[in-house]
Amino acid sequence: MSTRRPLFLSASINGSGWAGPSWQAAGTRWDRWADPEHYFEAARIAHRGRLDAVFLSDHPALPPDGSRSPHHVFDPIVLFSAIAGAVPDIGFVLTASTTYNSPYNLARRLASLDTISRGRLIWNAVSTFSPLVAANFGDEPVAPRDERYRRAGEFLQLVKDLWLSWDGPVEDLADRGLLWDATTARPVEHHGEFYDTSGPLNVPIGPQGHPVVAHAGASEQGLDFAARHAEIIYAPVPGKQVAANRIASLRDRAEAHGRDRDALRLLPGLSVVLGDTTEEALRTHEANHGLASEEELLDHFVHRSGLGTKPEIPAGTSPDEPLRPEWFPILTTDGTFQTVGHSKAIPEPLETEELTLRQLARRVEGGHALMVGTPQDVAQEIIEWWEAGGVDGFNVQFPVTNRDLERFVDEVVPILQAEGVFPRAYDGGTIRDRLGLPVPAPGTIA
Amino acid sequence: MSTRRPLFLSASINGSGWAGPSWQAAGTRWDRWADPEHYFEAARIAHRGRLDAVFLSDHPALPPDGSRSPHHVFDPIVLFSAIAGAVPDIGFVLTASTTYNSPYNLARRLASLDTISRGRLIWNAVSTFSPLVAANFGDEPVAPRDERYRRAGEFLQLVKDLWLSWDGPVEDLADRGLLWDATTARPVEHHGEFYDTSGPLNVPIGPQGHPVVAHAGASEQGLDFAARHAEIIYAPVPGKQVAANRIASLRDRAEAHGRDRDALRLLPGLSVVLGDTTEEALRTHEANHGLASEEELLDHFVHRSGLGTKPEIPAGTSPDEPLRPEWFPILTTDGTFQTVGHSKAIPEPLETEELTLRQLARRVEGGHALMVGTPQDVAQEIIEWWEAGGVDGFNVQFPVTNRDLERFVDEVVPILQAEGVFPRAYDGGTIRDRLGLPVPAPGTIA
Repeated sequence: MSTRRPLFLSASINGSGWAGPSWQAAGTRWDRWADPEHYFEAARIAHRGRLDAVFLSDHPALPPDGSRSPHHVFDPIVLFSAIAGAVPDIGFVLTASTTYNSPYNLARRLASLDTISRGRLIWNAVSTFSPLVAANFGDEPVAPRDERYRRAGEFLQLVKDLWLSWDGPVEDLADRGLLWDATTARPVEHHGEFYDTSGPLNVPIGPQGHPVVAHAGASEQGLDFAARHAEIIYAPVPGKQVAANRIASLRDRAEAHGRDRDALRLLPGLSVVLGDTTEEALRTHEANHGLASEEELLDHFVHRSGLGTKPEIPAGTSPDEPLRPEWFPILTTDGTFQTVGHSKAIPEPLETEELTLRQLARRVEGGHALMVGTPQDVAQEIIEWWEAGGVDGFNVQFPVTNRDLERFVDEVVPILQAEGVFPRAYDGGTIRDRLGLPVPAPGTIA
Repeated sequence: MSTRRPLFLSASINGSGWAGPSWQAAGTRWDRWADPEHYFEAARIAHRGRLDAVFLSDHPALPPDGSRSPHHVFDPIVLFSAIAGAVPDIGFVLTASTTYNSPYNLARRLASLDTISRGRLIWNAVSTFSPLVAANFGDEPVAPRDERYRRAGEFLQLVKDLWLSWDGPVEDLADRGLLWDATTARPVEHHGEFYDTSGPLNVPIGPQGHPVVAHAGASEQGLDFAARHAEIIYAPVPGKQVAANRIASLRDRAEAHGRDRDALRLLPGLSVVLGDTTEEALRTHEANHGLASEEELLDHFVHRSGLGTKPEIPAGTSPDEPLRPEWFPILTTDGTFQTVGHSKAIPEPLETEELTLRQLARRVEGGHALMVGTPQDVAQEIIEWWEAGGVDGFNVQFPVTNRDLERFVDEVVPILQAEGVFPRAYDGGTIRDRLGLPVPAPGTIA
């Protein structure tokens, strides 16, 4: 092993898992997604596995389809703060919108949690494109992507300025009877297109300078935003070669914005499906979608990916013939109501490898990378990705939480530890320490 | 003892305490207000004393005066959520603004915390009148009080509608493969003067129906708001006779709004200053203001209360002559940048008792009731107030937290317990249970 930092692993703990029928999964409680204890337990399992963080995406609206368990119930700020009070070490990847929060409140809430948790916070900044959410926050429809990202850019800069605006208590000043003055608590006086804020923040600079900033957008606007502001990229990356290309191009973009090209980490989403045998894992993968066979899975994949709907597939093409990227629907990158990343990711592995329908259907899941197999298979594949150098770790997603998370912790993590790519203990440091990211200080760009 | 509910006691834990020089107090760490552990410790001390709740007021802006320790650092939603994960039983009085939050976000965050803490949340709704805060949330100045309260009224109604909009998982539905439908997750479709929200909330109805709602305003608009929406009143009440009048008039107002007159609790602020002897307590009271004698305290009181500035006091009036209410400045109730309650409270005891300057200066502190004496003196006075029937308890404020909180818990609480007015153990119930407040359900007014 080189001196490279260990693999960074987070676990997505939304709801009852990504599998559609996850709420009815055997051996689990059907209504657990509405019980806070379910999430505390997830964090404790992740902590037992020495995982670096737990991850919550967010969507502040109840979807109309009541047949699937909701992925988003409790507010992530509240839930993670409560877990921070109960579970040590574990980090928090907290998703919060730049469109539906005010910068001062969010800056203060995230700074508070980062300090209270002693440097365990990652903010996953999202611009939010759901009309359901928009309808809970006023009478304006979702803004076009350009405007959302212009707002997000201003929001991020303001929040970072607030985070670095007050040095906190300084002993020299205290000796003179003061707790702050204009040199240690500096006004921000931001007056921009979307926001006006005087500052300074009333929470001192935290243990990490400020929380680590993450972004998952993969549209042109999202990639530019990430290159300017993000330290972690969660964008869907469905292959290790894709990963290497993606991070290289992001580092180029970051450099073009005057940032250090090394101050970026790629931690793509990874769906894991485990079985005692490879065969059993394949059947479980089908069952996760409520399907009974591989043929049904292929039909389901074709339907979900839009394969052959627009550019037609030659009649009689077999699932064992190589797929061509042009058979997938052409994306309109100015579309507002879809994530570009998840759709674009599905055919992306075909750019670097030849794959059949039968193979591709086992390689991507909801746009994210997918690994299906025994714990040994999955651990090996994780190590191969990691050794290929494109990724710094993964955000692992489970068909059924907490059941599958527990299995991952008990059966995959020990192999990663035995192979020396994943630590056996927490080292007490902040998330920045673990990722080797620089600590932002007043006057710096990052 | 009657069957009356026990005294309800909360402890205010803001910053380093209300005393101006509290951050420099002997035997304490000067920068503790910036350390989250200070607040966790406060909650643990309060829990040891079986107090019902800890209280945080809020002000999302750093004041310009750096010589006094800030009362408001960490965001109360985050700090209380973290404490909820670490300390059992204790309730949380969480102050949050109806002007500088969005209803959906705040409804969701408070509902999340109430469920996660298993029914331990009280929301102290404030309309916020600080220009410093306004400057952190846009370019609009503070709105006039009428508009703020019109907004607050709409905000409260919407938040309560959201809180009761989703019944949560229902077994009958689940048997049919559904987790919710339009009968159990009901749209809110609020389209008002200030807010548009479709709903439903994506957090199910909590263990208390919804968090208990509190208000402290004492202006005409504040009293009307409280009568319509509040279940707990925190308004400054500087005398037990004043308390009895206040709650009676509030119950009348609530009834006029169609509410049950018994669904209101009065829990005024109470500043406590303790000493081994009464003399020592008096000297400590002076020292809390950085003053060295009773004469200095009287001057300070005259200055702070505005006594004699507008309607003149007859020359040569001695501090031992009875004060007249008309010697205090006349309040303009339409003033925007002051709390009516705190100013109005100072001369209020004179309406029911004859008091000299020397006496009144020991009876009110920042507009709140003040008790100065030995633990036995203070316990006795608390019991007298409680037995007089106007108050259901107090929100106790300490010159120096956590030092004075600890002394209160160790020396005053045991007397209250021995006298049978305060419980020796938590009973596992929600805050509503402890206060005997009705549980709101969909379709009810409360």
